[in-house]
Amino acid sequence: MKVYVDNNATTMMDPAVVEAMQPFLTEQYGNPNSIHKAGSSIHPALASAVDQVYTAINAADADDIIFTSCATESNNWVLQSTWIDDILNGDKDHIVTTEVEHPSILSTCKFLEEQGVKVTYLPVNEQGVVEAHTVSSFITEKTALVSMMWASNETGMLFPVKEVSKICREKGVKFHSDAVQAVGKIPVDLQDVDIDFISFSAHKFHGPKGTGALYIKNSQKLSPLFHGGEQMAGRRSGTLNVAGIIGMGKALEIATTNIGGKMAEISAKRNKIEDALLELEDTFTIGDRNNRTPNTILISIRGVEGEGMLWDLNNGEIAASTGSACASEDLEANSVMLAIGADNELAHTGIRLSLSRFTTDEEVDYIIAHFTDAVKRLRAISSSYAIVQPTPGGEASCEVH
Amino acid sequence: MKVYVDNNATTMMDPAVVEAMQPFLTEQYGNPNSIHKAGSSIHPALASAVDQVYTAINAADADDIIFTSCATESNNWVLQSTWIDDILNGDKDHIVTTEVEHPSILSTCKFLEEQGVKVTYLPVNEQGVVEAHTVSSFITEKTALVSMMWASNETGMLFPVKEVSKICREKGVKFHSDAVQAVGKIPVDLQDVDIDFISFSAHKFHGPKGTGALYIKNSQKLSPLFHGGEQMAGRRSGTLNVAGIIGMGKALEIATTNIGGKMAEISAKRNKIEDALLELEDTFTIGDRNNRTPNTILISIRGVEGEGMLWDLNNGEIAASTGSACASEDLEANSVMLAIGADNELAHTGIRLSLSRFTTDEEVDYIIAHFTDAVKRLRAISSSYAIVQPTPGGEASCEVH
Repeated sequence: MKVYVDNNATTMMDPAVVEAMQPFLTEQYGNPNSIHKAGSSIHPALASAVDQVYTAINAADADDIIFTSCATESNNWVLQSTWIDDILNGDKDHIVTTEVEHPSILSTCKFLEEQGVKVTYLPVNEQGVVEAHTVSSFITEKTALVSMMWASNETGMLFPVKEVSKICREKGVKFHSDAVQAVGKIPVDLQDVDIDFISFSAHKFHGPKGTGALYIKNSQKLSPLFHGGEQMAGRRSGTLNVAGIIGMGKALEIATTNIGGKMAEISAKRNKIEDALLELEDTFTIGDRNNRTPNTILISIRGVEGEGMLWDLNNGEIAASTGSACASEDLEANSVMLAIGADNELAHTGIRLSLSRFTTDEEVDYIIAHFTDAVKRLRAISSSYAIVQPTPGGEASCEVH
Repeated sequence: MKVYVDNNATTMMDPAVVEAMQPFLTEQYGNPNSIHKAGSSIHPALASAVDQVYTAINAADADDIIFTSCATESNNWVLQSTWIDDILNGDKDHIVTTEVEHPSILSTCKFLEEQGVKVTYLPVNEQGVVEAHTVSSFITEKTALVSMMWASNETGMLFPVKEVSKICREKGVKFHSDAVQAVGKIPVDLQDVDIDFISFSAHKFHGPKGTGALYIKNSQKLSPLFHGGEQMAGRRSGTLNVAGIIGMGKALEIATTNIGGKMAEISAKRNKIEDALLELEDTFTIGDRNNRTPNTILISIRGVEGEGMLWDLNNGEIAASTGSACASEDLEANSVMLAIGADNELAHTGIRLSLSRFTTDEEVDYIIAHFTDAVKRLRAISSSYAIVQPTPGGEASCEVH
């Protein structure tokens, strides 16, 4: 049995999405910016995809949703254009973000620091989330932007975006969220959360790779990252990836239809796995599952290197991860676990399982059985595990929950 | 009969390309940056696509070819990172480009001018091309980059990239070319032309929309436009658009296999149309056809507004263009025709026909017949045409050839 539980890295395309894209990979190939029929005949399907995305995140007519190539582009766009507009050509000098953002935020912030921008990296608590009240104290009159993820790619933990949005509005600071792990997984309602920009990406919710988006509240000013033609009202130039946009619209419509029901089904499966794995001695999961995306578990198994565990799971045809795929070729400690205070040895033991609506009950049982066996196998050959056996009384030595 | 002759705007995907992409839209959906089998199983196909692109443009092992989302991204990347690396953080202050570049170059240069960069826009001659010797005189010791297209999107005219590459190498200035209308249409041999960067895009040669590339000679330094994860050695972050990259490789392999034979077939059809249309009174095509991409005609019909002609062609199910699709929603004069000195009235009469290897002999005959009739119809109702009848002796009043 092949089991794919690395859906926070990327997802299988929904067959209905592939089907919706097909005509735009074959006969309907015109450039929608051309004025002939081969171009203009694309408009209705494009308009429908745009509507699907607006509806899914409850955007207002006055807002812009600009299609990009991925959330990395969207994140770079917001950060770099904020630098150019408000810092290089304005009177601001400061950006606030968190220690646990995705590399597309953190690396961009490092780059901006090289350009003289001051960046504050907010710490997280033992649950791996930023506490909203900490944001206030770091905002100055020179702060151009706060950028905080909506949900963690590593842990699934939900960040207090609504509270932070209120703080930012009060202080008159723009607020961006990398919502790539939230959109399509949990309700994202932009009438409920008053936020300036969010980034998201189709391939995280069973749409195609190569299509992302940036939501821009009230179509406010933000210099383009791609200058050029008149596409998307000049906000993001380049020939539209028509099939990708149509796939994204369809995928998001499916993902957000009866999202409550989908969440309940996925979280029931996730919880079954999590409960079973927590019955093993010396295993810990990160963060309260009631404040997590319904599909994610980050589990630590004392004495078992994450890389060894992945190798064993891989032999059992289970695709999981030690953390972000964007960094998984490095054998580094899990950065989120380090940020929440895990010791270095424990931070090397994190395994992320991220389910999807295509995860079956049979797969759930298979994961539990294989994972349990793997832990026994690997602990039997672990040189360090004997040393870190739990103290009498069964209390674990790590505070993470 | 539906006839598509707007292939400089975008192309139909080759059915073999669609077929090559299918597995990566369905079962092979892993993230190639994941270390499990679902990810690593993608590597052979990706490596093969990379090889196809290296082979097609004769790049060296030491060079980088980085996949992007489109040539607009590639062009923005080179220009913006040159600004950041060599001007904002270096001792240069100047970029040289041409008056007739694609909007993704011209708009980015306008943006850089707002940031204090000096930009020289080289003029073109009556053939619509820059003369290589003019480049020398504008390069100063403060010049960071020369950016000149390889072939014009509007006219198909080929620019003297080899001569300019020698001048730039002598002067120690980096040289970039927007080769989006050259790669896949004519031989592009990067062992023959010593150039630092070229941009190109799959959807111009029967590959998918949403995938472009930037060639970087000797993998030289150029700050990323997308900061983030470790994809593409950190040069361009973001989850790889696997299907798009595989489609690009396949499309370019097909386009460049026996490219001489393909060029001969396409140019024969192009020439048949061009010869027939030039037999109409007061029609002019831009540029020597021996120095043009084999698929392109930019024709002016004195007394016939380009928009009216497009409308008539469109009613006849012929998809053509007045110029770049990136600007074609505007009813502006053709900027290349203005640059070569056409009067404003004539510059509003340009019609671009751009063929492909899928253009059939029947379509060629249909275009000639319909176009000829359309000219008669539209001249009959033209308010201006009677005034601009040719002078006795038949000599046209416009110098363009």
